[in-house]
Amino acid sequence: MATKEEIINFLKTDFPQAKCIVEKVGEQSSIVKQQIGFEQMRPGGTVAGPVLMAVADYALYVAILGEIGIVSLTVTTNMTINFMRKPISTKAIIGECNLLKVGKTLVVGEVSLYSEGDPKPVAHVVGTYSIPPKKNQLC
Amino acid sequence: MATKEEIINFLKTDFPQAKCIVEKVGEQSSIVKQQIGFEQMRPGGTVAGPVLMAVADYALYVAILGEIGIVSLTVTTNMTINFMRKPISTKAIIGECNLLKVGKTLVVGEVSLYSEGDPKPVAHVVGTYSIPPKKNQLC
Amino acid sequence: MATKEEIINFLKTDFPQAKCIVEKVGEQSSIVKQQIGFEQMRPGGTVAGPVLMAVADYALYVAILGEIGIVSLTVTTNMTINFMRKPISTKAIIGECNLLKVGKTLVVGEVSLYSEGDPKPVAHVVGTYSIPPKKNQLC
Amino acid sequence: MATKEEIINFLKTDFPQAKCIVEKVGEQSSIVKQQIGFEQMRPGGTVAGPVLMAVADYALYVAILGEIGIVSLTVTTNMTINFMRKPISTKAIIGECNLLKVGKTLVVGEVSLYSEGDPKPVAHVVGTYSIPPKKNQLC
Repeated sequence: MATKEEIINFLKTDFPQAKCIVEKVGEQSSIVKQQIGFEQMRPGGTVAGPVLMAVADYALYVAILGEIGIVSLTVTTNMTINFMRKPISTKAIIGECNLLKVGKTLVVGEVSLYSEGDPKPVAHVVGTYSIPPKKNQLC
Repeated sequence: MATKEEIINFLKTDFPQAKCIVEKVGEQSSIVKQQIGFEQMRPGGTVAGPVLMAVADYALYVAILGEIGIVSLTVTTNMTINFMRKPISTKAIIGECNLLKVGKTLVVGEVSLYSEGDPKPVAHVVGTYSIPPKKNQLC
Repeated sequence: MATKEEIINFLKTDFPQAKCIVEKVGEQSSIVKQQIGFEQMRPGGTVAGPVLMAVADYALYVAILGEIGIVSLTVTTNMTINFMRKPISTKAIIGECNLLKVGKTLVVGEVSLYSEGDPKPVAHVVGTYSIPPKKNQLC
Repeated sequence: MATKEEIINFLKTDFPQAKCIVEKVGEQSSIVKQQIGFEQMRPGGTVAGPVLMAVADYALYVAILGEIGIVSLTVTTNMTINFMRKPISTKAIIGECNLLKVGKTLVVGEVSLYSEGDPKPVAHVVGTYSIPPKKNQLC
């Protein structure tokens, strides 16, 4: 298992492109946050779908690192997103992840996405990550 | 229905954040292309998953505009992506979309994503778009 | 909105093929149960995947009827299932549904599926139902 | 790899509950068929969604057996189905499967489902199967 600090340090080097902030790493769970600016918007004054997917993907990755420790070659194998409400483009997006299954090779988790301050989710994601066999792990 | 030029002009104004290029608009289909740079990469020298989703989302949007004409409030309702092979970060990503159903309110399509020049898909997407009722359409 | 009794009576006539029992109809939620016999099994002494999907579909339908009232032409538009643990073929399958969004035309919900008595879910489903326009509703 | 006859014989013993017929086993592909009777119907004179999922699941299983040989513990890890048109309850359901990726541990495939004789698909499925490590395989 990895602490919030270890995960933040790892991601700073390993995944510098990510714009998300790690807010919390919990028991098979995480909370992450992404600020929204022009680049994250799409027509209609709302947040682009792929940005929501990116936040969900990041939340899953953080929750998995928190659970299995720092394993850099962990990859998403699939993801399903349902868009439910129009996010507000002036609010940050919050992703709350809960892992549903932590297997030896596959991890399944779900992420609820919110416009900060609004209790109704804007989108819901279920995703699967594949964990590489021990011998292929770099960290 | 809208031509490739009408779609390109519309998207230039409507969705300036998109980094994709419209390559082809066909019969219930489209081909789009995105160059990959540092911002589009993720750990492991590969392309970030959300970038693949963004390309797929764009390909779906373009194919739908080609089929139903310029309708700006069309939104994604859900999307499922399966990641199948590691994209090459030095190649552009190509998205080839085929619409499976064009209904009055829902459109379903699939997108195969490729690293340019490689015939084996790196990912596969199925997505649904919701078309707003005529009275709510802006264009 | 419809009560548990109204839903049970409606489904008895409307959907006699279903083998599920309605256990509870709550606030945007439901619990249903299906006994497992030889017909519901698959190789490996476990429950067939399509049976789990059928239980999830039923749980969604019941939760929606509880929320919007008896509307017979409501149909599933898509469903994603993740199989997480091997169900025990000697236990009933329990489906617990929560609706995530109740819109005018689309309802999104999730269902956790359990082998009765085991707190860890065997599968997780997210599904979307389409509600017909008022003028097309039979009930 | 396994032939159509080997697969039919294996499934007769291994999965006697299945009501599907194997029509064709091709290069990373399969065609299967299921007759529809009262038990397979749902309200509205149509085919129940879980029956379509069962046909898709079977088509995937058959295509995988055709590709990797008889491996009995192969299991579905996830499946996404989009329902696109109302199937006709007096026609058989045909499932046409193509594998998109055959990896060492995961296989991804898609299935188009048809009412026999109608060229427009009634539903579309993407699913992932997990192949057990060689040492755990029974056959």
